[in-house]
Amino acid sequence: MKLLRIGPPGAERPAVLSPEGVPLDLSAITPDIDADFLSGGGLERARTALEAGELPVLPGAAGAGTPDGPRVGPPVAPRGKLIGIGTNYADYAAATGAEPPERPIVFIKPTDTVVGPYDPVRIPRGCTATDHEVELAVVIGRTARYLETDAEAEAAVAGYAVANDVTEREHQFGHGGQWGKGKSFETFTPLGPWLATPDELGDGGTAALGLRTRVNGELVQDGTTAGMLFGVPYLVRHLSRFMALRPGDVVITGTPAGVAMTRPDTPYLRPGDVMELEVDLLGGQRQVLAAA
Amino acid sequence: MKLLRIGPPGAERPAVLSPEGVPLDLSAITPDIDADFLSGGGLERARTALEAGELPVLPGAAGAGTPDGPRVGPPVAPRGKLIGIGTNYADYAAATGAEPPERPIVFIKPTDTVVGPYDPVRIPRGCTATDHEVELAVVIGRTARYLETDAEAEAAVAGYAVANDVTEREHQFGHGGQWGKGKSFETFTPLGPWLATPDELGDGGTAALGLRTRVNGELVQDGTTAGMLFGVPYLVRHLSRFMALRPGDVVITGTPAGVAMTRPDTPYLRPGDVMELEVDLLGGQRQVLAAA
Repeated sequence: MKLLRIGPPGAERPAVLSPEGVPLDLSAITPDIDADFLSGGGLERARTALEAGELPVLPGAAGAGTPDGPRVGPPVAPRGKLIGIGTNYADYAAATGAEPPERPIVFIKPTDTVVGPYDPVRIPRGCTATDHEVELAVVIGRTARYLETDAEAEAAVAGYAVANDVTEREHQFGHGGQWGKGKSFETFTPLGPWLATPDELGDGGTAALGLRTRVNGELVQDGTTAGMLFGVPYLVRHLSRFMALRPGDVVITGTPAGVAMTRPDTPYLRPGDVMELEVDLLGGQRQVLAAA
Repeated sequence: MKLLRIGPPGAERPAVLSPEGVPLDLSAITPDIDADFLSGGGLERARTALEAGELPVLPGAAGAGTPDGPRVGPPVAPRGKLIGIGTNYADYAAATGAEPPERPIVFIKPTDTVVGPYDPVRIPRGCTATDHEVELAVVIGRTARYLETDAEAEAAVAGYAVANDVTEREHQFGHGGQWGKGKSFETFTPLGPWLATPDELGDGGTAALGLRTRVNGELVQDGTTAGMLFGVPYLVRHLSRFMALRPGDVVITGTPAGVAMTRPDTPYLRPGDVMELEVDLLGGQRQVLAAA
């Protein structure tokens, strides 16, 4: 099942894609795709209604989930925590010269950085080192604390989405501070287009999904989740020891090699540049860079 | 004006203290003390109603704002960002051996760590280095981006409160990670008892407020905001360059010397210990440590 939120910022309507890709209205099932929906059996109700053919077509929403369709918001209401994992791909660690971490590097990103998958990304004033990071996002479906097994971790996951963990490198690493300073700018976390329930990934799950970023049409990141140092079930278990995971929380799980920081001549993002990101089975994003 | 939220978690009622310290019901003015209230002229409406004597006494709330009164929640609904400043006191830097930072060290704390000022604080499982940090909290009252002057920064502040930035030291500094890992545990940010509007601080403002922590009755932190490396207006201006500040966001501005980490024999917090924190003019907190 692929769930979307379609409409203007803050007024998105919940929808689900039919097997043919037609957006169907979920408003009769829930007012939003949020913590209450995820933890209150909403996914099961949506699936039952979808399979019974009970859901009407959402008017004016044809093409939603593609860059040329109507506006799509983040696929889960951005009110939970946004948790980042740093240096979680072997090729990224090698390219940046970082030692592969012994344990997951965890940082918190403000949730109000989250925007829709085709919304513009604004380069902060005075900044010249804005960079892209295509990532697999994990959406939490139920409250989880001190999980002990991978099965428990998988049961806590509502689904998956594409994320762009946009980062300003000078402020991430400069001045002796914490990473948060380079990752907290407005519009710095495009999420979506849709929330895919785990069954969408098939038997392979999150083990080997391709992730790609193109900048102005040039393929710059071309990785696979097989390169993760810490896989999704491990990350969810690990995080649940350090914080309560709650329905609607989002974990962005790190980026593979190919970020601008490690490319020759550091061609960081500039206004007018176009980022296109995709993760296998989870759809694609497209953002135009603008000046803040 | 001193504003409180009184009642069980998630169902607090908005209140204001009369000049005699009696909690008055603000429900006729606003359903909650939150972003809409702060940015929509709520403080002015509350003050007008208070001065006109129009507000009824809130039943069953006598003593609210003291440890022996009814339960008080955080004084602003915990739905905005929670932004921390690290190593912001000269005496703390000296005691920990840290170089005083050239620019503010910024980290993000999950908002769902926020609890009321007398709620229990839970020591995470397997952790032995839980520590207290009494801090001045700044509550943002309006959206602010790229502020240029101290006057603009002061106009963006709704008020002030006491915060305890509870931190697990092993996970803050250990394993090569980011600080977020030691600061994201549930119950790790008691906030309140009340939100004091800036006029409550008088002409001195935030320049020289005493901050104190007692553990089991022993005075362990005894500082003053005069020891801040970066003062409140500077911090608000600085942060507005790195993120959009929004009504209801909270900035916790660092702690003075005296944390357990720097005391002989590192007597970290244990279940049953009692923390009492206060900031001049902003009231006091009291938390009993429990095991998670």
